[in-house]
Amino acid sequence: MINDIEIIKTKTSKINEVDFDNLKFGSVFSDHMLECNFKDGKWQAPKVLPYQPIVLDPSAKIFHYGQSIFEGMKAYKDVDENVWLFRPLDNFKRLNISAKRLAIPELPENYFMDGLKALLEVDQEWIPKKDGSSLYIRPFVFASGNGFHASPADEYKFIICTAPSGAYFAGEVRVLIEEKYSRSANGGVGFAKAGGNYAGQFYPTQLAIDKGYQQVIWTDDNTHEYIEEAGAMNIFIRINDTLITGPTSDRILDGITRKSIIELAKKEGINVEVRKITVSEVVEAAKNGSLKEMFGAGTAAVISPIAGFGYKDADYELPKLDETYASFLKKRITDIQTNKAEDIFGWRYQV
Amino acid sequence: MINDIEIIKTKTSKINEVDFDNLKFGSVFSDHMLECNFKDGKWQAPKVLPYQPIVLDPSAKIFHYGQSIFEGMKAYKDVDENVWLFRPLDNFKRLNISAKRLAIPELPENYFMDGLKALLEVDQEWIPKKDGSSLYIRPFVFASGNGFHASPADEYKFIICTAPSGAYFAGEVRVLIEEKYSRSANGGVGFAKAGGNYAGQFYPTQLAIDKGYQQVIWTDDNTHEYIEEAGAMNIFIRINDTLITGPTSDRILDGITRKSIIELAKKEGINVEVRKITVSEVVEAAKNGSLKEMFGAGTAAVISPIAGFGYKDADYELPKLDETYASFLKKRITDIQTNKAEDIFGWRYQV
Ligand SMILES: Cc1ncc(COP(=O)(O)O)c(C=O)c1O
Ligand SMILES: Cc1ncc(COP(=O)(O)O)c(C=O)c1O
Repeated sequence: MINDIEIIKTKTSKINEVDFDNLKFGSVFSDHMLECNFKDGKWQAPKVLPYQPIVLDPSAKIFHYGQSIFEGMKAYKDVDENVWLFRPLDNFKRLNISAKRLAIPELPENYFMDGLKALLEVDQEWIPKKDGSSLYIRPFVFASGNGFHASPADEYKFIICTAPSGAYFAGEVRVLIEEKYSRSANGGVGFAKAGGNYAGQFYPTQLAIDKGYQQVIWTDDNTHEYIEEAGAMNIFIRINDTLITGPTSDRILDGITRKSIIELAKKEGINVEVRKITVSEVVEAAKNGSLKEMFGAGTAAVISPIAGFGYKDADYELPKLDETYASFLKKRITDIQTNKAEDIFGWRYQV
Repeated sequence: MINDIEIIKTKTSKINEVDFDNLKFGSVFSDHMLECNFKDGKWQAPKVLPYQPIVLDPSAKIFHYGQSIFEGMKAYKDVDENVWLFRPLDNFKRLNISAKRLAIPELPENYFMDGLKALLEVDQEWIPKKDGSSLYIRPFVFASGNGFHASPADEYKFIICTAPSGAYFAGEVRVLIEEKYSRSANGGVGFAKAGGNYAGQFYPTQLAIDKGYQQVIWTDDNTHEYIEEAGAMNIFIRINDTLITGPTSDRILDGITRKSIIELAKKEGINVEVRKITVSEVVEAAKNGSLKEMFGAGTAAVISPIAGFGYKDADYELPKLDETYASFLKKRITDIQTNKAEDIFGWRYQV
């Protein structure tokens, strides 16, 4: 028992099968998982269990009505083997914001935080030490209750799995600004980390990949004139020396990396504007040379620089600068995350 | 083997535990299910199996990225115990339209149709004979492949389960015209029967229920001025003697009941208009007495009359007519479905 969390350990660890020097992203899973069930109207005590299959009735609502939400976090080990999380309470709060919108019962904070800490303690050997690697943490909640009736389920599972991971993206990223498809509606669930938002992106993304791009830049569903997100990341655009990102809304995920970048950049004296930004403005800036950088921001990749974009059958290249805000800010954030730099913001959270 | 479908029968039928005179909707499941797996780049041969739990890795993409689609159909038994489906090829086609949008591999027609027929033959005793009851059929496809990477899965399961069912709705239905939330975006997945569309409706519907309504009338996400759907049904509005329904779009499901009603009503000499209809027009019609009926249309309820609606803190009652298009058309459709009337359209499909 750690913090009153019941722990059942695996008899056969798989850790020796893992090549920690060549980790992909999110494809090898640690020995244990946290499981917490909602039934009889309340969340039952969480348990740490051996990583194991989930068994569901074919009528479980997750299969039919997409009632599911998730989070993405990382744990880092510093040179002294201390374990750190980055703003974990923000993930917890966002999970509950998502829960509310998807009619999923909200989780008690201690089940989330104590459950997560117990899991990380049991699987601490799984947290990579190598620079650039981390333990990716995936909390998720889904409808496990049964019945072919389009209404909220009466039972849910909250699970946390972890995956020792290397970097998320590899290579140059070229993006296509979307003119037809969209990921979220006004009054919809775009601000929630709901499973259905991601499935809806796959087909338009595949069309972009077929055209030679790696990702889609999402625009508003009404005019396709406002830039909203970059794949499953928030987006930043640097015009001259100003860093611009759109305001969050009910269509845009309130990213923890995004808001950390805004604070950090301001602190570093970079001029930051949080305002709507149009496709025309970006195209114009690309044409007149004032467009210096574009990058995605999210937990998995931290910052993912964009090398160029396509729009209305034309391609635009971004300049190759020696010093970019992207690499400067990425280093500043990851140094804080991994306890290599002072954390004046109080973002780091020791486990 | 029926039509080359492998069949493994259950050893212990549950049919004697079922009270066929008091069936709810979609909560008792028949003895068997059809299962068909997509792996190694293709759909493998479907099998009829005993109804059984689905076992998945915690990293299966259905839990994280909402990659799932479904259909809803019914099988009916006539007095001579012949078994009938209603326009099943349209469900098959729509499943593949949904599949494409959700980046799920499309199904071969014979796997769907022969699989369904084999399942219905094995579980024919489960098809209710009582008037108003039917065997509800739920084909669904979801991502069973693994990995924390927001991209299409490499494995899928296509499953058909069936549930002997009574009527879907009970009691008077009062609806709230939505002014804030929405179910789908332009360029989104609203036209697909994707799981995520339904989860997104639960919270706004719960808010409506808390205010004393049973369902939400969805409006367009941009202006909330156009009437789109009624809960998980298409919507028809009768003003004087004209029956109006909105055109389908990428935000609206192309319902099989809807299009059957349009054809039937026209055939019966009712004036039908397929055109955009605004909330103001409906409110105006309610005020001047020309609004005669509103009803939802979908497989589960066939036709579900609406008794009144709320909009901007005002409530509007619909008149209680002796003869309604709703009951007339519902009887005409169900008579065709259950082989009580001639089927000049060729909609009925004998199994
Ligand atoms: C749609 C979307 N936008 C933005 C982000 C970035 O959020 P965060 O920085 O909290 O990871 C994510 C998650 O990674 C996301 O799924
Ligand atoms: C959103 C939505 N609209 C309309 C319908 C009606 O379609 P159908 O008549 O094919 O059942 C359904 C499904 O029943 C639905 O889920």
